[in-house]
Amino acid sequence: MIDKNKIIEAFNYRHACKVFDAGKKISSEDFSFILETARLSPSSFGFEPWKFLIVQNADLREKLKLVVWGAQGTLPTASHFIVILARKQKTMHYSSQYIKHMMQDVHHLSDDVIKKRGGFYKIFQESDFNLLESERAMFDWSSKQTYIALANMMTSAAMIGIDSCPVEGYRAKEMEKLMTDEFGINNNEFGVTCMVAFGYRVDEQKNKTRQEIDEIIQWFH
Amino acid sequence: MIDKNKIIEAFNYRHACKVFDAGKKISSEDFSFILETARLSPSSFGFEPWKFLIVQNADLREKLKLVVWGAQGTLPTASHFIVILARKQKTMHYSSQYIKHMMQDVHHLSDDVIKKRGGFYKIFQESDFNLLESERAMFDWSSKQTYIALANMMTSAAMIGIDSCPVEGYRAKEMEKLMTDEFGINNNEFGVTCMVAFGYRVDEQKNKTRQEIDEIIQWFH
Repeated sequence: MIDKNKIIEAFNYRHACKVFDAGKKISSEDFSFILETARLSPSSFGFEPWKFLIVQNADLREKLKLVVWGAQGTLPTASHFIVILARKQKTMHYSSQYIKHMMQDVHHLSDDVIKKRGGFYKIFQESDFNLLESERAMFDWSSKQTYIALANMMTSAAMIGIDSCPVEGYRAKEMEKLMTDEFGINNNEFGVTCMVAFGYRVDEQKNKTRQEIDEIIQWFH
Repeated sequence: MIDKNKIIEAFNYRHACKVFDAGKKISSEDFSFILETARLSPSSFGFEPWKFLIVQNADLREKLKLVVWGAQGTLPTASHFIVILARKQKTMHYSSQYIKHMMQDVHHLSDDVIKKRGGFYKIFQESDFNLLESERAMFDWSSKQTYIALANMMTSAAMIGIDSCPVEGYRAKEMEKLMTDEFGINNNEFGVTCMVAFGYRVDEQKNKTRQEIDEIIQWFH
């Protein structure tokens, strides 16, 4: 059990930190902890449709900087910079080898349960969600799951006094090419969903602005 | 600062809890805390494209149960049940009144900054992400943001010993009709993105299964 006030404190401490102290590195223990909260994150059907590229190489960061307009201040200063990938139709389709692998080798399900759960997954994908209607529909659905891991990493980092900045702003087509050419990523299997930089702030954070709670909730008693 | 071990403990405590103790209610203080972590969650451009319907009414839960096949055990037993909505193109388009309202009245930006940031937002939506290509593209993008709030609520709940279950399994078209007919939701403005139930477990959780860390990360030194 963790004290509620301490948790809310961390939520208030977290902000989109646009520049980090380039001289301060996150310890390997702390960074492993952050990654562990991504690994333990839930995902639809438990299929973990994600991969995390940790970009520490200066040349690669320079190349990213040319296409990631949303990370101009963080790419050069972040202690750690993660490109988050989501799985595409090729591996997320109900008939894919990856899905079979997850149920068999990771979830350790019996053949009976694999058949049943796989059947549900097929129905889910074929249902009126139409996940099979396009590569984009499936990829966006995979991407949603990665935002769970993204959130957990940022929240957990804040809880141990580490700053972060999520990044969605990049030129998608150039990014795709960069992923193939420089990172060896198979674009049929994975696509970039977002990025997140970690480090320690140099500037004071601005006042947090949010809608009031009553503007975003509605009770049905 | 919160102890890393305690945080990881909470991540291990969290699991998709399929049935709750129907007799145990989350205190109003604890539930407000969970909602507050949703409210303080980050979102793209800070536009908070979400709404949270808290469904406590038994009749409404019965009606949901007919279309939400993924919440058969949780709808009747959850202490609190939230339907998460995401905003659609009508209100998330760069020219919308809602976006203007957010920058003006919530972010309290000056006219100059609104012009600049609004310009970035327009470029972002028109870029090769093609958020404007379809209602679905925009809605899926909005929905991604709601998964950040979803993650934060589940994680924070686990940190104070409260169980949760995220839900994606429902018949989308019937759900849309239910939202209009029974919840008074304007389907041009909002759509259902997912749901999450909260309460206290009755059964022991199963062993957590995940890929190993090296299967999901790749370092670029």
